Amino acid sequence: MTTGKKPLIINAFEMGSPGHLSPGLWKHPDDRSPEKKDIEYWINLAKLLEKGKFNAVFIADTLGGYDVYNGPRNLDAVATSGAQWPIHEPSLFVPAMAAVTKNLAFGVTFSTISEAPYLLTRRLATLDHLTKGRVGWNIVTSYLDSAARNTLGGEELPPHDERYLRAEEYLQVAYKLFLSSWSDDAVVLDRKSGVFNDPKKIREINHIGKYFNVPGPNIVQPTPQRLPLILQAGASSSGKDYAARNAEVVFLVSLEPENLAIEIASIKDLAREKYGREEGSIKFIQLLTTVIGDTLEEAEAKYKEYQSYGDKEGAQALFSGWSGFDIGKFGYDEELVYSESNAIRSFAARFTKPVVGEDNQPKKTRDYFANSITVGGTGPVIWGTAEQVADQIESWVDISKVDGFNFAYAIAPGTIEDVVNKLIPVLRKRGLVWDDYPKEGVTFREQVFGTEGEDPSFLKPSHPAHKLRWRAGVSKEEFEKSLAQ
Amino acid sequence: MTTGKKPLIINAFEMGSPGHLSPGLWKHPDDRSPEKKDIEYWINLAKLLEKGKFNAVFIADTLGGYDVYNGPRNLDAVATSGAQWPIHEPSLFVPAMAAVTKNLAFGVTFSTISEAPYLLTRRLATLDHLTKGRVGWNIVTSYLDSAARNTLGGEELPPHDERYLRAEEYLQVAYKLFLSSWSDDAVVLDRKSGVFNDPKKIREINHIGKYFNVPGPNIVQPTPQRLPLILQAGASSSGKDYAARNAEVVFLVSLEPENLAIEIASIKDLAREKYGREEGSIKFIQLLTTVIGDTLEEAEAKYKEYQSYGDKEGAQALFSGWSGFDIGKFGYDEELVYSESNAIRSFAARFTKPVVGEDNQPKKTRDYFANSITVGGTGPVIWGTAEQVADQIESWVDISKVDGFNFAYAIAPGTIEDVVNKLIPVLRKRGLVWDDYPKEGVTFREQVFGTEGEDPSFLKPSHPAHKLRWRAGVSKEEFEKSLAQ
Repeated sequence: MTTGKKPLIINAFEMGSPGHLSPGLWKHPDDRSPEKKDIEYWINLAKLLEKGKFNAVFIADTLGGYDVYNGPRNLDAVATSGAQWPIHEPSLFVPAMAAVTKNLAFGVTFSTISEAPYLLTRRLATLDHLTKGRVGWNIVTSYLDSAARNTLGGEELPPHDERYLRAEEYLQVAYKLFLSSWSDDAVVLDRKSGVFNDPKKIREINHIGKYFNVPGPNIVQPTPQRLPLILQAGASSSGKDYAARNAEVVFLVSLEPENLAIEIASIKDLAREKYGREEGSIKFIQLLTTVIGDTLEEAEAKYKEYQSYGDKEGAQALFSGWSGFDIGKFGYDEELVYSESNAIRSFAARFTKPVVGEDNQPKKTRDYFANSITVGGTGPVIWGTAEQVADQIESWVDISKVDGFNFAYAIAPGTIEDVVNKLIPVLRKRGLVWDDYPKEGVTFREQVFGTEGEDPSFLKPSHPAHKLRWRAGVSKEEFEKSLAQ
Repeated sequence: MTTGKKPLIINAFEMGSPGHLSPGLWKHPDDRSPEKKDIEYWINLAKLLEKGKFNAVFIADTLGGYDVYNGPRNLDAVATSGAQWPIHEPSLFVPAMAAVTKNLAFGVTFSTISEAPYLLTRRLATLDHLTKGRVGWNIVTSYLDSAARNTLGGEELPPHDERYLRAEEYLQVAYKLFLSSWSDDAVVLDRKSGVFNDPKKIREINHIGKYFNVPGPNIVQPTPQRLPLILQAGASSSGKDYAARNAEVVFLVSLEPENLAIEIASIKDLAREKYGREEGSIKFIQLLTTVIGDTLEEAEAKYKEYQSYGDKEGAQALFSGWSGFDIGKFGYDEELVYSESNAIRSFAARFTKPVVGEDNQPKKTRDYFANSITVGGTGPVIWGTAEQVADQIESWVDISKVDGFNFAYAIAPGTIEDVVNKLIPVLRKRGLVWDDYPKEGVTFREQVFGTEGEDPSFLKPSHPAHKLRWRAGVSKEEFEKSLAQ
């Protein structure tokens, strides 16, 4: 058994679309992906996850379709296969789920590509109020031209590194609006004197930067967490740097725990050495899809059955969108390690996904990729009995020191039902997950970092935004002096 | 008794902020305005309104604070008085309310000032799905510099008429995304052939205009109403033109039913003559605040008590934001009819609000305005027993031919509780409101225009966007030919 000291972070990984990471599996008779447009899907999911004492539902998003494959601007494959198409707006699921839960948290993806940071801050702040502090912001910069084209007046996507520079300034604006424009004690609510908010405790932020000019103040009063939990998926080097500086939870995708250990260590080093962030101030979670049976044979048969529903065209469309490279330009038997594209060549060399019933040292052909990502996307799939899956999870934790997992579905929500009903009880017996939430009405940050300490719902002192918070009892002049230091 | 043929449209008028139209009344011991940040407030409100068989909750919004008074950029009065400050994001209340209701509809304010129309369309489409067709879009163009300054990179507000030109093109983009990018039968869900969406039934809109360049297609599949019900408050002449062309429900504020009749007739004429819209294709609703007591004396005492909680500074801040003119520049006894500003002079001349216990031919001083809009804003207040209030409502309907009312609160939600528990039963007895929703799961458009006809959840044939709908069984080529005609 692993130490059992810290419970693993257990999230469901979802999206407001069918075929999130398992394109084609909506055809399975048990799959309910087409119902994701319905409020009942999300209400039932939230109740299921709270029953399983999950930390959160983590909702992915993109603002455009995967139209790179056989493209550009070709949506045929995703439309036909339902591979992340259509895509509904994720933040709107949250209030419906919050209405039927007390402790489940919500990691919601919002892109910095086009929405005014003042408006996004208002949406996030409203969500933090409505959920009583159960919201996290998964910050993404958008990687699809289709997103840029439709939200930036027809423009193409800005270059990757510039997107991160812009995202960094975007986040600075959000920090200031959340933390530096209202003091903790600005809302007075004194019925006798008639003071709702003390205007001396509200100030403009007057941000003027390269990309944004936002005077403020924030239009929403201080929220339960003061700032939503900051989540980020940092795969590229700019992404890693961004995560090392800002993220409290980093979401990673590795195919082996040994690689995951390296990824985690590199971000931890960067966070400590470049940004002076304290040990333990970033948690790491890994993508995982599980297929559980009563016997190993049953699990294998189930996995094979799932694969049989996979849509290879949809998978190739997702692959082409993720990599930015149209895999349709290859022949089916051509090996991608010989591609002229550096990115594709290095991806193909690194990517080795064991798939039940297949050669574990396969040729990295277009066909191989099309097949291997139809279940669980580019993340690992673990199959077996609940005990066997728990063994492998323990091994992943032992080797990588990962803090938790985003459980993706093969079929929605059946895969997650299996996790709740079959896997979680085994993990609980082994002391790997908590018996219950630490308290009723726990905030997302408390769930992740614990309920101890002076202000467990707020950022750790070494986080760069920690000092931006205008605290109770501090005058505007004192606060502005402290900001200038 | 009036005809009783058509039931009145009955909405609650709300906002994600305290002091919506009654600044200062949060100080009343029964008021719950400070709880508007909490999900319970909205859940309880939704249940109350559905119990009262209300058509909808109509949620106002602004994207900035009222900082004109003693300004510019002075939020002191609204902060202190809690007059529409802070303001939470309204669309996020809807899924929580939809989770606990089956028939109540939601009129939500979204501004065209800065959000990309593609993203706003996605949010509205997701709401129409989650509510099963119970959403309306109250289109506003924003009138506060504070909104522009914070969402347009520090810029000032574009001129009024340009905002309407932009809003007109914005709406054209939204129409195309909703109606012309997916055919009614694009979502196939054929598990056997593996077709989720038929790509031949999805097309780019390729909108290129003066303000927007949006290729599309919409990222969300066709919604229950195909297009949310289009709501608009059109007071200015550009606003009236916009409403006459596009709106299905127009929200008006008159102080006397005779004026309301003139307003309604002028928009109806414009709709018919300039835009060829058929009779009955626009419904009109009027702002109204009611104060109900068991006797007239009790109602008067209650109204006086409410007035005693009014915050004159907050009222002046709201007045200055609405009119765009800083009323703080006048002396308290100065009469505004002698102002150098045309807008203020004409407003002051027109505005005559009877307030209980006060001279009904008052001097239009700054002090008069500060007092008279502390309850119900610039809209009328009717007080009396439920029977007396119902009499006055009948009289408003008889004189103005108005189709319904937005009921504002003096205290939240107590005023609306009185409407549900005391006024609605009397109106029902008189045949002025329906006994029940026409059917379970009724759409917003069916509520307003009836459940009869070929496709009662869709626009009337004379609406300019009616022909933009790509219908089932029509090929892409046929559809594009029909658009070109």
